[in-house]
Amino acid sequence: MGNTQIRIGLLGFGNVGSAFIALLEEQRSAIAARTGLELRVTHVAVKDLTKKRNGLDSEIELTDEPQQVVTSPEVDIVVELMGGLFPAKDLIETALANSKPVVTANKELLSKEGKGLFRLADKKRVDIHFEAAVAGGIPLIRVLRESLAGEPVEKIMGIVNGTTNYILSQMDETGAPYDEALLEAQQLGYAESDPTADVSGQDAASKAAIIAMVAFGADVALNDVLFEGIENISSADMAFAKKTGNTIKLLAMVAQRDNDLEVQVYPVMLSKNHPLSSVGDSYNAVFVEGNAVGDLMLFGRGAGGMPTASAVMGDVIDSAFNLSKKTYRAMGTLEEVSLMKAGCQKSAYYIGVQVIDEPGVLATVASIFGDNGISIQTMEQEGMGGEARLIFITHEAEENQLEETLSRLSGLSCVEKLGTIIKVLEA
Amino acid sequence: MGNTQIRIGLLGFGNVGSAFIALLEEQRSAIAARTGLELRVTHVAVKDLTKKRNGLDSEIELTDEPQQVVTSPEVDIVVELMGGLFPAKDLIETALANSKPVVTANKELLSKEGKGLFRLADKKRVDIHFEAAVAGGIPLIRVLRESLAGEPVEKIMGIVNGTTNYILSQMDETGAPYDEALLEAQQLGYAESDPTADVSGQDAASKAAIIAMVAFGADVALNDVLFEGIENISSADMAFAKKTGNTIKLLAMVAQRDNDLEVQVYPVMLSKNHPLSSVGDSYNAVFVEGNAVGDLMLFGRGAGGMPTASAVMGDVIDSAFNLSKKTYRAMGTLEEVSLMKAGCQKSAYYIGVQVIDEPGVLATVASIFGDNGISIQTMEQEGMGGEARLIFITHEAEENQLEETLSRLSGLSCVEKLGTIIKVLEA
Repeated sequence: MGNTQIRIGLLGFGNVGSAFIALLEEQRSAIAARTGLELRVTHVAVKDLTKKRNGLDSEIELTDEPQQVVTSPEVDIVVELMGGLFPAKDLIETALANSKPVVTANKELLSKEGKGLFRLADKKRVDIHFEAAVAGGIPLIRVLRESLAGEPVEKIMGIVNGTTNYILSQMDETGAPYDEALLEAQQLGYAESDPTADVSGQDAASKAAIIAMVAFGADVALNDVLFEGIENISSADMAFAKKTGNTIKLLAMVAQRDNDLEVQVYPVMLSKNHPLSSVGDSYNAVFVEGNAVGDLMLFGRGAGGMPTASAVMGDVIDSAFNLSKKTYRAMGTLEEVSLMKAGCQKSAYYIGVQVIDEPGVLATVASIFGDNGISIQTMEQEGMGGEARLIFITHEAEENQLEETLSRLSGLSCVEKLGTIIKVLEA
Repeated sequence: MGNTQIRIGLLGFGNVGSAFIALLEEQRSAIAARTGLELRVTHVAVKDLTKKRNGLDSEIELTDEPQQVVTSPEVDIVVELMGGLFPAKDLIETALANSKPVVTANKELLSKEGKGLFRLADKKRVDIHFEAAVAGGIPLIRVLRESLAGEPVEKIMGIVNGTTNYILSQMDETGAPYDEALLEAQQLGYAESDPTADVSGQDAASKAAIIAMVAFGADVALNDVLFEGIENISSADMAFAKKTGNTIKLLAMVAQRDNDLEVQVYPVMLSKNHPLSSVGDSYNAVFVEGNAVGDLMLFGRGAGGMPTASAVMGDVIDSAFNLSKKTYRAMGTLEEVSLMKAGCQKSAYYIGVQVIDEPGVLATVASIFGDNGISIQTMEQEGMGGEARLIFITHEAEENQLEETLSRLSGLSCVEKLGTIIKVLEA
């Protein structure tokens, strides 16, 4: 039985693109032996044709007209690694319209335009695969789409942004303040010079939207995702977390809450006993709670050329396999869901309040919690005099109730400043 | 577009079988909505027809003749949950010969007869799926077969036996001796009254063989796997591990070592910084080191009715999907490999030596290590007088070298007893 030839057209030749070509070069014969698929990159669309490209097979056709790649009759599968909305969206649509399966790592595009792209792929009966768009080398999407296709998934919590996890891990391990940890992440190339997309939680929000689509079949886009970042987390917050056997992590949370689906991103304080707490450095991890499977966690490299290329490779092999069998894996229709609104979430909270240390302050502050029906789990005073800080862990309360409390607290003359408010994840 | 009807014949109706039926009952319509597959159990083969079965749909045909299920024209997919070699082997062979895809959780059968069954399935062009045979609810097999199909996997280390992991975790957390932790595991139903298959490492060895087949395409069977258990691990060993920032875990190790493939099971001392060290209780986890993907870990429930049923369900959906598309996922041919032989492994070792505490003992003992070319990383004496114990961590050495050293040590008059020898996993 001869091998099936599959010709790949690559859009974009950056970090991931070149890693993908190198990996394929190295693994081509092993893949052929294992799967009977002979994979070959035949076209690569680049921005600048005059730039020198090392290690690129002379048989590969380089072009600066990506439209040619997605329409070429000599391309069987399109791999999109350019990122961004334009022209990626048009190119993927054209590829799908030409009945070419698409593999993409484009989280931004999927989180904004996933629904339309999925619908088009299903209509044309071809695959759209995007393992690399969420948590890099971690095979989350395949596990959700296939292994857990019959699982009553209840909750997915993910550390899906390596930059912020690096910063928080450093703050935990070395006690460094946020600014210092961020600077270090920038020096190591983990954070960009403008780190906003990562530290604001927006990048994680894109991934939360994609997870909600895949795991819950929910018609959710980035716009629907409430997100909060890590910019306001202080070393005092982290020190308190550590002292009490916790740490702080930025989570993408996708969970069924009664009739609402929660799709949000925020930092949480969570126990060192939770498997997610030991996910250090720039690693990613996704924790799945299923009604049948129980607790499941996937851990690995969320970014980087080679880990991402590895995820793309798995998708390419799967698409090639399906194409060779004239089949595909339908995405299915995304259904409208009731999303949990801002302020409705119930959680325990960590609240740090900077106060003037004078008699009666605690009673005054505590009474405001009480007035708003928020009961306190623990209270602690750190420091004395001008540096005094009251730290409260509340019992479960609605965010709305809390807002009310906070606004009254900040009006008190004895309160100098409200610190960061962090949700406490109950084990 | 109407749904595709898929009729399932179940062999065995124990813990997992009944969980599977309950899960399917609950998830049928969700699965149909998501995949267009209408799954229905039509036949169940049981041992004893007279036994009362609660909650079983009256439309399901119960039989004590499993041959009827695997040959019935009214069964599309066979799910084998009986376990053991006979009659499971014949039944699966008959099902495959009748072109029925098979889903099985039978690790014993696969580790002994996998090669022939895979060959038969490929020949008949039908699926054989076995996610539940290794690490229960953890989607390891699918990730290896699909996501990592193009990945240069170098090493797989698995905590794949929940019973021994529970025992070791208890010994670590509470300081309990082995016997006590085992008894507790038995009382909780984690260990059987005859725990040999688990504590000897044999169960993990079955899984190591299956992992070697799937991840390395290696023609390996249970007989080829060297295994060592946890019966000789003492609370003193665990206490030392803990004191030095380590713990002890039983690992299934499948790794490419130069030209040899290592497929073995043994306890290791590993750093608390390693992600596998925090896998507590009866959880399983598998750590994959790939050349492209980097470090990857999958963590979850390795046993139990519902987690196992969840893995079976993923396989059933996949088989049903492929069947409906008239396709299948080939297992490929298992190739002969050069297996690493006993004694050839290089490792650092932990060695406890019970000695008579008299002047010169350390020098005598140390000189024997030196004579055999084994250099010592650290040495520590615990206790005094009759209770004295020398603990050595060696630098990397071959097992054969070590054997020689140990036999000479045990011949010394000042040596009362050699304790457990445990490999130390270098980070």
